[in-house]
Amino acid sequence: MFEEMIHHRPPWLVTPPSTKPIAISSRIRLARNMSDLPFPGRCTDEQRNEVISRVSKAAEKTVLLQKAEVLRLDSLSPIDRQFLVERHLVSPEFVQQEAPAAVIISNDETCSLMINEEDHIRMQILRSELNLEEAWEMINKFDSDLEKSLPYAFSSKYGYLTACPTNVGTGLRASTMLHLPALVHEHKIGSVMSAVGKIGIAVRGLYGESSDSKGNMFQISNQVTLGQDEENIVNQLHQIVLRIVEHENKLRGTLIANKPHQIKNDVGRAYGTLKYAEILTSEEATELLSSLLIGVDLQVFDEVDRTVVNELLIDIQPAHLQKMKGKNLTAEQRNLYRAKIIRKRL
Amino acid sequence: MFEEMIHHRPPWLVTPPSTKPIAISSRIRLARNMSDLPFPGRCTDEQRNEVISRVSKAAEKTVLLQKAEVLRLDSLSPIDRQFLVERHLVSPEFVQQEAPAAVIISNDETCSLMINEEDHIRMQILRSELNLEEAWEMINKFDSDLEKSLPYAFSSKYGYLTACPTNVGTGLRASTMLHLPALVHEHKIGSVMSAVGKIGIAVRGLYGESSDSKGNMFQISNQVTLGQDEENIVNQLHQIVLRIVEHENKLRGTLIANKPHQIKNDVGRAYGTLKYAEILTSEEATELLSSLLIGVDLQVFDEVDRTVVNELLIDIQPAHLQKMKGKNLTAEQRNLYRAKIIRKRL
Repeated sequence: MFEEMIHHRPPWLVTPPSTKPIAISSRIRLARNMSDLPFPGRCTDEQRNEVISRVSKAAEKTVLLQKAEVLRLDSLSPIDRQFLVERHLVSPEFVQQEAPAAVIISNDETCSLMINEEDHIRMQILRSELNLEEAWEMINKFDSDLEKSLPYAFSSKYGYLTACPTNVGTGLRASTMLHLPALVHEHKIGSVMSAVGKIGIAVRGLYGESSDSKGNMFQISNQVTLGQDEENIVNQLHQIVLRIVEHENKLRGTLIANKPHQIKNDVGRAYGTLKYAEILTSEEATELLSSLLIGVDLQVFDEVDRTVVNELLIDIQPAHLQKMKGKNLTAEQRNLYRAKIIRKRL
Repeated sequence: MFEEMIHHRPPWLVTPPSTKPIAISSRIRLARNMSDLPFPGRCTDEQRNEVISRVSKAAEKTVLLQKAEVLRLDSLSPIDRQFLVERHLVSPEFVQQEAPAAVIISNDETCSLMINEEDHIRMQILRSELNLEEAWEMINKFDSDLEKSLPYAFSSKYGYLTACPTNVGTGLRASTMLHLPALVHEHKIGSVMSAVGKIGIAVRGLYGESSDSKGNMFQISNQVTLGQDEENIVNQLHQIVLRIVEHENKLRGTLIANKPHQIKNDVGRAYGTLKYAEILTSEEATELLSSLLIGVDLQVFDEVDRTVVNELLIDIQPAHLQKMKGKNLTAEQRNLYRAKIIRKRL
């Protein structure tokens, strides 16, 4: 499974070359638990194994995961685990635990299901660009399929019960990954974050909670899960994303009109460094590739194909590099190999 | 005269492509005054004009300057003045004054003669690479030619008399411009400076006194002018330069052996930035071109011709840019034009 994943791009990242999405991808996840077993944090190993077994069987009966392999966490090397995090298929917290847990991933990486993360079940659907409604329809259907074989913990008063109270109710978190270089460049990202924060929307870095923004990429997601229905949550987030995208788009227009040389300068330097550096850390490469993206999108720089940049943003991550190279690499070796791959592809 | 100068390189900068000089150029200047007039600082304008007239006539009788034009300072625009400074033909102090003064420059820019700088006469010979002895022979002959028509202020006790006591005696300053990136990179330049300082040798930046080092270029020159004969001064400096060059060469070897990737990284990034930046200040461009030079010299980077880099180091200077463009440019316009020229030539 990993061998295949290394050699193809996740479909949610592939967009037609003509589009210049500010919204890179959309994701919805649902948290569910079984009513007849304690939450994972209070399970014995035996009970956790029972959860894996029962959820795996239920997944086999769904359309999306019927042919998917069950990957037990204890069978995965540290690099494999990190690879799945980099691919946005599991959470960093999930792969750090030692108790029995598993993940099931559809071949096209659209659907993934973590068993025994904080809740018994964390399922997600990942789509390219701004496609929250489509993602919601898919996950809603998938959830109904699972529910046929599993007794969900559900309260008529609160809704779905979850390990952490912030997920109680719908158990739903919807998010969109946005590329916002103009808002960052013009120091407007702070005011956007505080404005949407007031209406229960969080803005975070690339890998969710507590991660810093890398390469001007931000995750916009709902915070409230209780007391609203799912369609409302998804629709509200969709509307807010549309407004942020509009803001970013306007600002890009202003930037290219008022500071054409500065933009060309930033983009050109980023390209020159990527093309000729011998050593590149993950952080720096991500920043520079993000600068390139804005150059491509604003049509001030046409030496680069957007798809190549998008692919590189995934491939230059530490575990991806090591999977490609087929062996463990030190940080120093990765920085050399990363620069080599970037030089070759640009 | 200026039109021609813009379109050709100063001969002292042109070295065979096969050589990779650490010593870029050698310069000797002599300070002389006439015995029958006060030092320039105490001259009336009339007396200063008399100096110009008498020295010009004497210069016409020399082999080196017989066909050279006398450029009166008050006939030169601010850009022309700055251009001559950038070309290392006059001192920054010389062009800042308002009292009558003039400069005479040989067509090949090897010989120049400032009239009414701090002393009545400051003559210099500029040669490529480490050629102090040749420069000494040339200037000694030139000085004897001048002396035939001018009554030099000379004391049998002290030697030649000069406005500033630090020049009394021989009135000779010999200097070599050295490119020392490895010593800078390895933080050894400080100890070299203090070591040679103890034996009366000064290390300064590119444009002489009080100027910072730019692009790892340093001027090494004698401080003592009194109580030694000229051949000794020149020979001592020659020996010291040889030792610094040896030190730099060894360090370059160590660097390339121990830190090949770091060197390639520095050089590659410098090239990438120069090749794709839209905006480049004089300081940054000089630094980056210097990094390129070491890449070329250490053969870690073969995309660039050394001659092109040497020419750019001269041409990207503010007055050179404006002479090439044929009009005054603001600092912002220069940064754009500088980047454009560098992109085109690399």
